Amino acid sequence: MELWYTEEHTDAVRFGIKVKEQLFSGQSPFQKIDVFESVEFGTFFTLDGLMMVNQKDEFVYHDMIVHPAMASNPDIKNVLVIGGGDGGTVRELTRYESIEKIDMVEIDKMVVDVCKTYLPQTASQLEDDRVTLYYEDGVAFVKDKVSVYDLIIVDSTDPIGPGEGLFSTEFYTDCYKALSDKGILVNQNESPYYARDVREFKRAYGKISKIFPVSKIYQFHIPTYPSGHWLFGFASKGIDPLENDKIDQWNELGLETLYYNTDIHRGAFMLPNFVKKMMKEVTCSE
Amino acid sequence: MELWYTEEHTDAVRFGIKVKEQLFSGQSPFQKIDVFESVEFGTFFTLDGLMMVNQKDEFVYHDMIVHPAMASNPDIKNVLVIGGGDGGTVRELTRYESIEKIDMVEIDKMVVDVCKTYLPQTASQLEDDRVTLYYEDGVAFVKDKVSVYDLIIVDSTDPIGPGEGLFSTEFYTDCYKALSDKGILVNQNESPYYARDVREFKRAYGKISKIFPVSKIYQFHIPTYPSGHWLFGFASKGIDPLENDKIDQWNELGLETLYYNTDIHRGAFMLPNFVKKMMKEVTCSE
Repeated sequence: MELWYTEEHTDAVRFGIKVKEQLFSGQSPFQKIDVFESVEFGTFFTLDGLMMVNQKDEFVYHDMIVHPAMASNPDIKNVLVIGGGDGGTVRELTRYESIEKIDMVEIDKMVVDVCKTYLPQTASQLEDDRVTLYYEDGVAFVKDKVSVYDLIIVDSTDPIGPGEGLFSTEFYTDCYKALSDKGILVNQNESPYYARDVREFKRAYGKISKIFPVSKIYQFHIPTYPSGHWLFGFASKGIDPLENDKIDQWNELGLETLYYNTDIHRGAFMLPNFVKKMMKEVTCSE
Repeated sequence: MELWYTEEHTDAVRFGIKVKEQLFSGQSPFQKIDVFESVEFGTFFTLDGLMMVNQKDEFVYHDMIVHPAMASNPDIKNVLVIGGGDGGTVRELTRYESIEKIDMVEIDKMVVDVCKTYLPQTASQLEDDRVTLYYEDGVAFVKDKVSVYDLIIVDSTDPIGPGEGLFSTEFYTDCYKALSDKGILVNQNESPYYARDVREFKRAYGKISKIFPVSKIYQFHIPTYPSGHWLFGFASKGIDPLENDKIDQWNELGLETLYYNTDIHRGAFMLPNFVKKMMKEVTCSE
């Protein structure tokens, strides 16, 4: 017998993963959660049938969602993570002794519980003393906050289902208000390859670039996401991730990472022309 | 009825493409050649069941196999392309007025004929006056050449089947001899993600780095190759693709490209730590 997990990257493109066994299947109030043990990627979990995190390449995603911002401003002390129920983003953040407080707001407690059981690789640091977990709606949580955080990371699913509000102008505006003067917003910004992902990439970038004076996009290779070509947004009230003499200070911390380094930091913001063109289409049509 | 083309990226990972119709299927003396019309990627062709070129993302591959070398040395006049039967590499080369002569050595005439018929998007410039086509074995062709070419591009299949000799120490040594003083070798260098591809990446890099004084690896996003994270090698007798004051001159040529630009040129050589580590494993174990 062979068991295959198949994900539809588009109506006409499928990605199949050979599975040893299904470890968990549940329906939370928000979404369907499944956990599988695979031959190639180790343990992985899906939300509503979309790959979220797997043992083989989660390091790419979590390196890239945390370290570029931390290298851009070594004085970050208070961090808000919205989403990120698997714990990988918090795990990377807790490696910085300079961080004093991490609030993590995950709408779906079942995601956290499932990851604590099946993916200790990512969920291992959620008990860190500096971490406070809120099982709440991130959109509501950030609404009344003023100048509280130095860094907000939106570690969300796609803008379908529970993640939808995390791609709205209102939410991004509230994030702007919740950030301190040197605040940075990093967000999951989809992909420039398949049409549906391109639409969401452009929508998110368009909204954020109207609110933040600095609004950039950076890319990385994550083979298990559709097309493997994935983007994060980097927006701030002034800090530029490239024109920045602090980047190389990051090396003095001595953090071992499998993907990120200060070369990649610079290289990730160097975008192909077709991606730059998409960004221009957004900012020039407004 | 639905028709799906499925490629095995590993024994435990499959990539499926919805196909409108199969346009061609043939067996040459060297390999099996199939051409399909797909919903997502337009026309694509495969050799021995592996995706080679498709209309949607061939621009990434052909931009990146040609322009980094051309920007690193604007004086390139004589070029040898080994493999590249689809014509995409030659198409990009013919855009440079400064190039005087292009020899293309493709072992399999059927690949060229099939691409001329079904993929004019890539095969369109093979009739350029400066191009000479040789239907020969690239390994034998390069053997007796001394200081003839400013650039050799090895646009090969994987090191299984007819492409195998193009990954040998003997062949790379012959390429070194065939290059002029300022010569550059660019080669298809596989991928750092799945085990089989990693093995071939390391073998090729290990061999080339022993022969050429400058030996680097650069990366790009090509979603239809296994993992989407692909590598080319850049080796030379002295020219460095980064420590080079000529790069920005490339912009004066006014070539329109969809992937390559001089930012990407620099960014592509910025590698993740896990890729650097693989390179170190090779060079330090010898």
